[in-house]
Amino acid sequence: MTRLFNEPDDFLDELTEGLIAASGRWVRGVPGGVVRSTRSPEPQVAVVVGGGSGHYPAFAGLVGPGLAHGAAMGNLFASPSTQRAHSVAKAANEGRGVLFTFGNYAGDVLNFAAAEEQLRAEGIDCRTVLVTDDIWSAPVDEISKRRGIAGDLTVFKIAGAAAEEGADLDEVERIARHANDRTRSFGVAFDGCTLPGKSEPLFTVPAGRMAVGLGIHGEPGIDETAVPTAAALAELFVSRLLEEVPAGVEKQGARVVPILNGLGSVKYEELFVVYRTVDKLLKEAGLVVVDPEVGEFCTSFDMAGCSLTLLWLDEDLERLWTAPADTPAFRRGSVTAREQVSVSETEAAAEKTYGQASAESQESAGRIAALLGSAAGSIDSAADELGRLDAVAGDGDHGIGMQRGIKAGAAAARSAAEAGAGAGSVLIEAGDAWSDQGGGTSGVIWGRMLQAFGKSLGDEKPVDAAAVVAAASEARDVVMGFGKATVGDKTMIDAVVPFVDTLAADVQSGLSLSEAWGHAAQVADQAARDTAQLVAKLGRARSHGERSVGTPDPGAVSFALIATTVAGELS
Amino acid sequence: MTRLFNEPDDFLDELTEGLIAASGRWVRGVPGGVVRSTRSPEPQVAVVVGGGSGHYPAFAGLVGPGLAHGAAMGNLFASPSTQRAHSVAKAANEGRGVLFTFGNYAGDVLNFAAAEEQLRAEGIDCRTVLVTDDIWSAPVDEISKRRGIAGDLTVFKIAGAAAEEGADLDEVERIARHANDRTRSFGVAFDGCTLPGKSEPLFTVPAGRMAVGLGIHGEPGIDETAVPTAAALAELFVSRLLEEVPAGVEKQGARVVPILNGLGSVKYEELFVVYRTVDKLLKEAGLVVVDPEVGEFCTSFDMAGCSLTLLWLDEDLERLWTAPADTPAFRRGSVTAREQVSVSETEAAAEKTYGQASAESQESAGRIAALLGSAAGSIDSAADELGRLDAVAGDGDHGIGMQRGIKAGAAAARSAAEAGAGAGSVLIEAGDAWSDQGGGTSGVIWGRMLQAFGKSLGDEKPVDAAAVVAAASEARDVVMGFGKATVGDKTMIDAVVPFVDTLAADVQSGLSLSEAWGHAAQVADQAARDTAQLVAKLGRARSHGERSVGTPDPGAVSFALIATTVAGELS
Repeated sequence: MTRLFNEPDDFLDELTEGLIAASGRWVRGVPGGVVRSTRSPEPQVAVVVGGGSGHYPAFAGLVGPGLAHGAAMGNLFASPSTQRAHSVAKAANEGRGVLFTFGNYAGDVLNFAAAEEQLRAEGIDCRTVLVTDDIWSAPVDEISKRRGIAGDLTVFKIAGAAAEEGADLDEVERIARHANDRTRSFGVAFDGCTLPGKSEPLFTVPAGRMAVGLGIHGEPGIDETAVPTAAALAELFVSRLLEEVPAGVEKQGARVVPILNGLGSVKYEELFVVYRTVDKLLKEAGLVVVDPEVGEFCTSFDMAGCSLTLLWLDEDLERLWTAPADTPAFRRGSVTAREQVSVSETEAAAEKTYGQASAESQESAGRIAALLGSAAGSIDSAADELGRLDAVAGDGDHGIGMQRGIKAGAAAARSAAEAGAGAGSVLIEAGDAWSDQGGGTSGVIWGRMLQAFGKSLGDEKPVDAAAVVAAASEARDVVMGFGKATVGDKTMIDAVVPFVDTLAADVQSGLSLSEAWGHAAQVADQAARDTAQLVAKLGRARSHGERSVGTPDPGAVSFALIATTVAGELS
Repeated sequence: MTRLFNEPDDFLDELTEGLIAASGRWVRGVPGGVVRSTRSPEPQVAVVVGGGSGHYPAFAGLVGPGLAHGAAMGNLFASPSTQRAHSVAKAANEGRGVLFTFGNYAGDVLNFAAAEEQLRAEGIDCRTVLVTDDIWSAPVDEISKRRGIAGDLTVFKIAGAAAEEGADLDEVERIARHANDRTRSFGVAFDGCTLPGKSEPLFTVPAGRMAVGLGIHGEPGIDETAVPTAAALAELFVSRLLEEVPAGVEKQGARVVPILNGLGSVKYEELFVVYRTVDKLLKEAGLVVVDPEVGEFCTSFDMAGCSLTLLWLDEDLERLWTAPADTPAFRRGSVTAREQVSVSETEAAAEKTYGQASAESQESAGRIAALLGSAAGSIDSAADELGRLDAVAGDGDHGIGMQRGIKAGAAAARSAAEAGAGAGSVLIEAGDAWSDQGGGTSGVIWGRMLQAFGKSLGDEKPVDAAAVVAAASEARDVVMGFGKATVGDKTMIDAVVPFVDTLAADVQSGLSLSEAWGHAAQVADQAARDTAQLVAKLGRARSHGERSVGTPDPGAVSFALIATTVAGELS
């Protein structure tokens, strides 16, 4: 369990400060994460990695010459927000474009995609290569749906080394994609981890048992067995990984890099005992082992587990894998000394000002801020349960992400309302803050929803039933366009659509806003219960969770909770 | 807990094989541990480190250019045997002498001292610098009694860097001693670890509590508190360490290297949150922070704990600390490429032959081997209890060390007896094997005792009561001369001396050997009970365990157990 923290809410900021203080030889802090503190001899394509925190040395520990140029750091097990990914990319950019590369998780995909869009709009060429090495997270015919785990390292390293050689963005993208195509990982777990300030572990594995294929955030695996011997585990790893030789590789005589990764509390000596057999089996299978790594490269706090990754080399990949690198947590060969850049001062946040608002809209703004505060309270109480629900099928970050996001959103709304903003501006501010602080899938979706809602309301007109229906419809359209899910996909949409439909129909038929909202909330609640049941069934079936874009399963549950809380306040 | 292993007895050999397979770029295996796989450009003083296994990257992970030249690897939490330390030093030696440096634990001190003696006899100059950084293991006026914990790293690094610069043995010894004088550490723990194949943890800390000053093998600390916040822990670390500024250091403006070390399952993010405050407090105290390290440098499997080390620099120490190094687990700066040495074949063990033995002595030899086998069975059953007893005041390795040692000793005795060796040779063989396989304090002491016993008996004369009394007296004299303890020091001597006295007196007064042995065993057993009571009292008082040479507290208990088992067989 995680024992050492101050305020759990400050954990990300404080770990970032500590990391920067400890690692100034390699990194410096920028809003949203870290970038190199050293200057490249010649401008390079910037390789920007990132993801949730709690996986050190992924991601900030891999920033430095020969590896990544920057890391966008999300909250614990939650993707960085769009703002964070954008900010880090801007700071890392050396004028030759940006490659985003990160593990394939819904929240990361949404946020980095939005940041990519923004960078392109600003004239910075940007590409994305997802890491999809986890063989158990989707079958081989849906390989692009697979999650990224410890194979992050090979893709990041290859991309970083190519950038270091001076390759252009096309080539860095191509070789990173090629490295991902040549990388496969197989993970197991023996026990979960407990996030800072939480009393319950995010997930558990029964004592004496091993979850096969379990993800680094507790995403369900495909099987559970008794804990095997070290040799039997090595056999399991190697035999399965050798069944899936990437296209274009001749197995006999192939050169491979094995990476045996400990997730936190499976320690070095145990890993070496396992590696002893891995090495033997790979050689017996006629492979040539090149520059292996045994250690901790992608952890999940003190989760008990490990994974074996194979990178199937060709000439280019071998040259790039063995090229020098110098980062806080991964060093190899000799990197020529680099000039340190002077740390630029972070710009002081400008005083916020808001446009003209009507007195009526200002009054509604105060009311909206108060409603968001109440909703934040409900989410706060339910956060652990939401996290557990998410851990059944996803990465367990939904509870903590919602909690941070709505808290930040409510605080921003309150400040804006106190500063005299109208209803629309208050909601836009809340959406910005939610997206930035909440991160993950829920952060970006709720951010977009509130912004659309606010934009529709504006700061002038009265916030009446018709205006609310129009704004809610806008918000629904935005989230459906963005997340690409429809009703029945077991996402938030399953609650949002009937909610908005009911709200609109009831207002149309003459009910008051509070009556209509109350009814709509009941409908949403029923949809959420259906989702929760499906999630529970999914957990029982222990099928491996599909994690395509737009399927953050407990989204309907938290939406209904917020809708119901607001209904209670309105009635 | 440790989950991944095959046969627990094979753990050390298998982890060593895996480590060598994974780390061939830096190390190669030799009997007893590893040495560099690279050739020095010019011959250097060989810095040989070592200790029990279970602390990776200490010790084998720190072998490579700019750091150690070899690591003698003992069994889990048990010192390497004399034979192992000697073998690694011989292989690491580049013709300019050997510096042994390791943490100050009784077993390591005894075994490395014996190896040093042997090296000198062979014409290889050898020195020893003990690491004594753990401020809670003895008061400042008994500073040389302190244990070595994560501060190992600074001493090893400074010594290795000096050797790399071409310094001679006098200078490498001097600077290593100086580095140790300038190094202080403070450790805490939240939970213990369970060794491979054991069902019980070596020690525990109550949930929600923090043991202050607890050693890396569970040696008792000085206090127990509630788990503090990360900031409060940083404050505790820094305030106490700043109270003990080494002689000759002007605190204001001093340059220090902080090393925040995780012991296994206190993970990187938590360490960074703690480090954030450490960094701030050091700077507030007017110190200059140089090249800090935050990570895992000396672990204890998945023990939950961490420590802060401060190395107080001067110009030489700073130059040596920041010099390049390239080892499996610690890299810094740029090391010029080194030629790999070809791995020499390990010589096949020569077929053992024994001198002429009388038929009578051969018969006794078989009987002695059988007695050792029975005693091994008793120790095997009691091993967990002996380990727990040792963990009260020591490092908890007594049970596992005795178990492995006597098992190996009994097996060697049986082989020798079957090959026709006489009683003396059988005991000498048993002693060799015990010392080599048991390691630790008990291994070296029992090895010496059996060898003395065997030498006295010889292979010709009958093994009668008089011969046994003479041999037992020899064995007693050797162990007293070697361990430098006397009756009343709460060591094995407390049981050995009355045992031999009683045996001698009873035989003198005409009792049979079996009667006399039975009586002597009773006397030894009483002495052992007294020791065990004192140990228990020590545990209750939670005073910090004195760990000077020759005080392996449960030694009397295991001695009495063996004596009593033999008495049962003889009667």
